[in-house]
Amino acid sequence: MIIFMKRRDFITKSISAGVLAGVGLPLLAQQENTKSSKHANVVNNELDKREKILYDTDIGSDIDDSICLSYLLNQKQCDLLGITTVTGEPVVRAMLASALLKVAGRDDIPIYPGVAAPLLTPQMQPKADQSKYLSKYPHETKFPEGEAIEFMRQTIRAHPNEITLLATGPFTNVALLFAVDPEIPSLLKRLVVMGGTFTYRYKDEPCLSEWNARCDPYATSMMYSAPVKNIISVGLDVTSHVVMKKDEVIEHFNTGILKTVLDFSGILDNTRQEIVFHDPLAATVIFDREICRFERGIVEIETESKRLGGLTFWKADENGNNEVAFEVDKERFFKHYFSVF
Amino acid sequence: MIIFMKRRDFITKSISAGVLAGVGLPLLAQQENTKSSKHANVVNNELDKREKILYDTDIGSDIDDSICLSYLLNQKQCDLLGITTVTGEPVVRAMLASALLKVAGRDDIPIYPGVAAPLLTPQMQPKADQSKYLSKYPHETKFPEGEAIEFMRQTIRAHPNEITLLATGPFTNVALLFAVDPEIPSLLKRLVVMGGTFTYRYKDEPCLSEWNARCDPYATSMMYSAPVKNIISVGLDVTSHVVMKKDEVIEHFNTGILKTVLDFSGILDNTRQEIVFHDPLAATVIFDREICRFERGIVEIETESKRLGGLTFWKADENGNNEVAFEVDKERFFKHYFSVF
Amino acid sequence: MIIFMKRRDFITKSISAGVLAGVGLPLLAQQENTKSSKHANVVNNELDKREKILYDTDIGSDIDDSICLSYLLNQKQCDLLGITTVTGEPVVRAMLASALLKVAGRDDIPIYPGVAAPLLTPQMQPKADQSKYLSKYPHETKFPEGEAIEFMRQTIRAHPNEITLLATGPFTNVALLFAVDPEIPSLLKRLVVMGGTFTYRYKDEPCLSEWNARCDPYATSMMYSAPVKNIISVGLDVTSHVVMKKDEVIEHFNTGILKTVLDFSGILDNTRQEIVFHDPLAATVIFDREICRFERGIVEIETESKRLGGLTFWKADENGNNEVAFEVDKERFFKHYFSVF
Amino acid sequence: MIIFMKRRDFITKSISAGVLAGVGLPLLAQQENTKSSKHANVVNNELDKREKILYDTDIGSDIDDSICLSYLLNQKQCDLLGITTVTGEPVVRAMLASALLKVAGRDDIPIYPGVAAPLLTPQMQPKADQSKYLSKYPHETKFPEGEAIEFMRQTIRAHPNEITLLATGPFTNVALLFAVDPEIPSLLKRLVVMGGTFTYRYKDEPCLSEWNARCDPYATSMMYSAPVKNIISVGLDVTSHVVMKKDEVIEHFNTGILKTVLDFSGILDNTRQEIVFHDPLAATVIFDREICRFERGIVEIETESKRLGGLTFWKADENGNNEVAFEVDKERFFKHYFSVF
Repeated sequence: MIIFMKRRDFITKSISAGVLAGVGLPLLAQQENTKSSKHANVVNNELDKREKILYDTDIGSDIDDSICLSYLLNQKQCDLLGITTVTGEPVVRAMLASALLKVAGRDDIPIYPGVAAPLLTPQMQPKADQSKYLSKYPHETKFPEGEAIEFMRQTIRAHPNEITLLATGPFTNVALLFAVDPEIPSLLKRLVVMGGTFTYRYKDEPCLSEWNARCDPYATSMMYSAPVKNIISVGLDVTSHVVMKKDEVIEHFNTGILKTVLDFSGILDNTRQEIVFHDPLAATVIFDREICRFERGIVEIETESKRLGGLTFWKADENGNNEVAFEVDKERFFKHYFSVF
Repeated sequence: MIIFMKRRDFITKSISAGVLAGVGLPLLAQQENTKSSKHANVVNNELDKREKILYDTDIGSDIDDSICLSYLLNQKQCDLLGITTVTGEPVVRAMLASALLKVAGRDDIPIYPGVAAPLLTPQMQPKADQSKYLSKYPHETKFPEGEAIEFMRQTIRAHPNEITLLATGPFTNVALLFAVDPEIPSLLKRLVVMGGTFTYRYKDEPCLSEWNARCDPYATSMMYSAPVKNIISVGLDVTSHVVMKKDEVIEHFNTGILKTVLDFSGILDNTRQEIVFHDPLAATVIFDREICRFERGIVEIETESKRLGGLTFWKADENGNNEVAFEVDKERFFKHYFSVF
Repeated sequence: MIIFMKRRDFITKSISAGVLAGVGLPLLAQQENTKSSKHANVVNNELDKREKILYDTDIGSDIDDSICLSYLLNQKQCDLLGITTVTGEPVVRAMLASALLKVAGRDDIPIYPGVAAPLLTPQMQPKADQSKYLSKYPHETKFPEGEAIEFMRQTIRAHPNEITLLATGPFTNVALLFAVDPEIPSLLKRLVVMGGTFTYRYKDEPCLSEWNARCDPYATSMMYSAPVKNIISVGLDVTSHVVMKKDEVIEHFNTGILKTVLDFSGILDNTRQEIVFHDPLAATVIFDREICRFERGIVEIETESKRLGGLTFWKADENGNNEVAFEVDKERFFKHYFSVF
Repeated sequence: MIIFMKRRDFITKSISAGVLAGVGLPLLAQQENTKSSKHANVVNNELDKREKILYDTDIGSDIDDSICLSYLLNQKQCDLLGITTVTGEPVVRAMLASALLKVAGRDDIPIYPGVAAPLLTPQMQPKADQSKYLSKYPHETKFPEGEAIEFMRQTIRAHPNEITLLATGPFTNVALLFAVDPEIPSLLKRLVVMGGTFTYRYKDEPCLSEWNARCDPYATSMMYSAPVKNIISVGLDVTSHVVMKKDEVIEHFNTGILKTVLDFSGILDNTRQEIVFHDPLAATVIFDREICRFERGIVEIETESKRLGGLTFWKADENGNNEVAFEVDKERFFKHYFSVF
């Protein structure tokens, strides 16, 4: 019975519904009279205010994606419609996301493994290193193949101007999504990105290269040149300031899903001594814009240089469609982050 | 009743079916006991032998795409599963394809407008010039939006190792298809391409640039570097030899759909004096390999140079996955081409 | 006797001799018995300890080249063997240098106009803006044509391992010198450069581009990849910290040649409000290394990117042939600078 | 008296004079009163009509440079003012040229080793392979160092609008000459080049790359973009048609200097079976323009692509400063070539 449908089933059906009519994509329309829909209806008003979010992530490399996902799952104002994974071993990454969802009791959220390889450039992130922790946690092992872009596409078309796409991995999925269906950029509410470094710094040291942008320069360029109404970028120069030392991490990551994240993080087995909250910073600004100070302008991406591919050019412009973070209120961020758990 | 389903409905449903089960894509499976399926079954043996073809085309610019489509529609051995359009004004191109399908009484074949803009490079083919002829012919005006790549993807997954993808326009759709679902290349029976110039000639004159490859060099590179089992390329250096002068064109294009093609061609209003059969040559070699002499090797694509982007590098290699045409039996081609009408 | 030749006469004659039988070159052969030459002979032993310097400059654009030249002329430890000019209107730049030499009573120093255009890239500095001040000051108007590189070459070969080449303009002359005679780099004592930005800053603001390197990226790359024993770079990130405000400039530039420099500077006609001592900082470290803190390493140059051409890549390496300034003792610099006047 | 100086002595002295007081350069000042010089004086009027030629060559790799030099030495209408060598081991190449001059009794002609390494790209021709034949023939071993460009520069300035610069190796020397003294291009009578392939053919096979242009794409670009009044290019597509088989070579290379060339060629020790007369074809058209059919136009050079660097773009243009050979009268060429011996 549909009432027991997990969210993944629900969305998947919605996707199918979208194609049923051939041309249009009214979607969701057929399932209005189900009990699940009724339930949805009851809490409708409140839920309507939640931010509809698609989360595109390279979870499984650095730990911050897991920290970000944990936040999204616990953020009451977040309606997480689905997760797509990107870069090397996207299925393993999907498994890792699935493990976290199960820990959180939220495995209704659909997960789609996305694209492994960058466009036209060598693979820089072939492995999902955290796979070593997988065996300890129940997780899904089967996922739809090659459907991530289509899932994003249909979800966005089903909720025009309502979806926030949060991308915290290399931007291959996002670029392909925008290329495959060029109306998608303008159907997004906003795109929020952890990527770039707009003052060429990492923890105040010179740094031209931010990993996500660097891993797939062509995709990064395609993404930033798309006609999204509002692109919010939180770059490495800002995220690198939200750091937590090992002891504090152990102290704070002591409940529920955060315990699992702590386990994944490598803090406990001493493979790392601190955590930089890159991705969660990007996520939190969706819900509290005051955490960062933003400037409006234009972002362009270097693609010609082999060594500098993915470098972010920034130009202030009050009519630009980009908002870029230039400062972070570190205290406000951490307070906000842990407040949702 | 499903028995009356037009092919487009059928395929569209199939697409939906593919997502129904969430993970796998068995497709088509549910509709076995329908009358259409029974009918399909009756003629099954014979039909099974036909080549299942997806046709990706920039129909609406040069006339050869229409000449190619006309051939595919009349070629008994061809099971045309769908048409996708590419480059500027893809919907207008879809309308033009639709007009031809209606003339041929074959508007059961699904048509999906694909991607208008090349990847990261300027648009070189913004218009579908033949739109001026559209008003004279009935045609569809509404098509699915942004679904071309997904249509190709699902059709190929529904018929693993059975589909020949014929691409005679810029390769944006094909590149995105391969990028979005990286298993697709290996699920194709073959890819047949009108593109490139492997001896750097056009009608024996020096020519470094072939239009389809030139229009989207990055896409061309992504396409040729994908692990397709068999890529058959018929380049400009070969196609430019299959030319028909105005008088002969008028004489031969005198039946059924060819009359419409003649109208579209600009021959009658004197905007052109001859027709080069680029795209149809690529189509015919699917059915008669002896029309061209092929060599096996490796193809790579120039992407660094602004002026030479899309140039095709050729290296003979008996283990290569590419077969490239180096000669054409012009007489055999024309005889074969007109034999299907 | 050679002992009485002024230096410019001497060198010019030497070079000119090469084409005596040809078109001939305008010579300055007439002024042999000057006191300055006699003086040079008398104090020979002491002079031997002086740093032999060739100064390659784009004097005539920003004022700092004039401030640098004034310093070199007044620095007792400096044996200025010649001046070469570079970028647009090199002859006008030579005139400006000549005007300053005459003010300083040092027009024995040879001046050679060098190369106007950058290698393979567009001219970014076509004009010597300070030409408007020329009419007020006596100056030479005829200079050897096309001989700058050969002058540098012969001067360096004449004093192997003794010459410091100081380059504070775009590096076209230097690159050509090194290319024309590939032994020259290893015959230099050192190369001192105002160029690059190694922490990507200008006055603490993000800045990827330093003008001298940017104006001729290929030349910059050729220069930095040459086997010079010791390349000392003082980049924009450091020089931009040695700034003097208008009032202080007026106060300090009140004697001799500095008055002329003040006039050239645009301070008095209010076209500028402060002066950044880029080039003089590079010059002073030849004589007092403690003015800057240097690190040893490797410098490489971006040439592929149209937008980032000339960007300086820095990597610390204790065996590198480069020393790059990372900090400046501003007070020590200014004290040193004005101490020579 | 200057009239009795051998040409090499004259020029070398002229240049050397410039550094007399420095390290000094090895001179060839001793051989003044030779008969060849006297003879030169006697026939002055007639000689004035001869073509003044500077020959820039990578002699020592393929044999055609030697075949070309032999021609120039025997061509009565040729006044060979000097030889400069280029690419890897330029001094060895100078020795090889010297050996031929001595065989011809013409070691009055000055030889200057030029630049070994291409500009900014990897060395593709590091060795002068024919050095193995050197020990059998007397030759000079000391040459001026780093003076080739200056020698070319001064020679051209000494004979404005009279010099034909013939370049049959990679174009590093020529590019540097034009960069160092930007008036030089306009002071040449003409530049004759063996280089490029303007129809992308080698012996009727597809070929995008011609060796000389390929070895130093940046230099090639600098050369072709200089304001030379008349650039005559004889490309690989044309030169590859003037081939002589081993037996014929042995038959024809049977007198004087050609015997030595035959020895150098590798024909006798079976390392090659035929000779293509690339460089001599370029030389002969200076004296008989009817040997090739030329078209007037514009030549530009690819520099962005790693794989296609040096590719020659050709566009017909009646106002262009380039004349490019498109056909050769093979019989006329060979008849002309051997007629001078």
